[in-house]
Amino acid sequence: MEAIEKALSFIIEIEKLKDVQRKTKPVGLNRFENSAEHSWHACLCALILKDYSNDPIDINRVLKMLLIHDLGEIDAGDTIIYSSETNEAKTKEKKGLERLLSLLPGSMNIELMKLWEEFESGETADARFAKAIDRIPPLLHNIYGEGHSWKQYGITKDQIFSLNARIGKGSEKLWSEISSMLEGAIKDGILK
Amino acid sequence: MEAIEKALSFIIEIEKLKDVQRKTKPVGLNRFENSAEHSWHACLCALILKDYSNDPIDINRVLKMLLIHDLGEIDAGDTIIYSSETNEAKTKEKKGLERLLSLLPGSMNIELMKLWEEFESGETADARFAKAIDRIPPLLHNIYGEGHSWKQYGITKDQIFSLNARIGKGSEKLWSEISSMLEGAIKDGILK
Repeated sequence: MEAIEKALSFIIEIEKLKDVQRKTKPVGLNRFENSAEHSWHACLCALILKDYSNDPIDINRVLKMLLIHDLGEIDAGDTIIYSSETNEAKTKEKKGLERLLSLLPGSMNIELMKLWEEFESGETADARFAKAIDRIPPLLHNIYGEGHSWKQYGITKDQIFSLNARIGKGSEKLWSEISSMLEGAIKDGILK
Repeated sequence: MEAIEKALSFIIEIEKLKDVQRKTKPVGLNRFENSAEHSWHACLCALILKDYSNDPIDINRVLKMLLIHDLGEIDAGDTIIYSSETNEAKTKEKKGLERLLSLLPGSMNIELMKLWEEFESGETADARFAKAIDRIPPLLHNIYGEGHSWKQYGITKDQIFSLNARIGKGSEKLWSEISSMLEGAIKDGILK
């Protein structure tokens, strides 16, 4: 197959991310979100919120990380973060991503796999900010959506605060703002 | 409202793009696509196909264009390109985008409006490539999906070739490849 045909076959294969259902519903919508539209939303969140990063970041690298961060879910599916940050889940996601990227021509598969690994490790400033951004939309979905997935999965306020404190590693300002909103959700009785 | 609160209100408002229904179905899915997941797909298509641009491009600007290119549809809705590239439709989309961007703090609204106008004008190398990329997924949806929206809207092969020849302005190589696929669709009887 020619390089251009390989690239187009990848483009068709990744359509499947539109069929990966997540655990929260977008604000105002009565259906669950899929991982493709989430990826778009996360990218635009990053662009809009970039100045709140603790450390200097390269927003272009952050956008690329967020464009590809969930591709492994095509094979592995989406799992709720409060119970699933296991090695097994991550290995499955990595294998899924490797399969997809192997469809690509040239060296782009190596570049994109490195970028995903950097995102997953969450050690660089770009990855810390990208990971912080990735956590924000599902929290907003719950805060503005009666805590629907918190209730469905029995997630407690202790779990919410403990897991999402990582937002502060990317942006103290965003974590401070989101924490206040979460305190409001506790007062409103939608987070217990 | 503080800047961070304004930014978050924008992030919540743009969720509505996930509820804007387009005219084609993603390959393999039996439902119509929405403009948010399309925007993600278009971004990743641009990243993967960037080396096929006729002219040197700044892929980071192209990605930003494609992230925001359909935001105006939140107010204006999606319209099929073969009958709707009218001034009226474009004015409605621009007004919708202006309303959304007015929610943003600082000068980002001006930057993003300029980027959208550049995309719409389609005159710079970045915009020509972004517009070429934007056309590719709906063509693939039809080619791999029995020409479903061509049939539904009575779109002829003359219309397809005449409107999509603009892909060649951004990438001769991509237009050549897509043209061959369209010729195949004619042979298969799904495009008439």
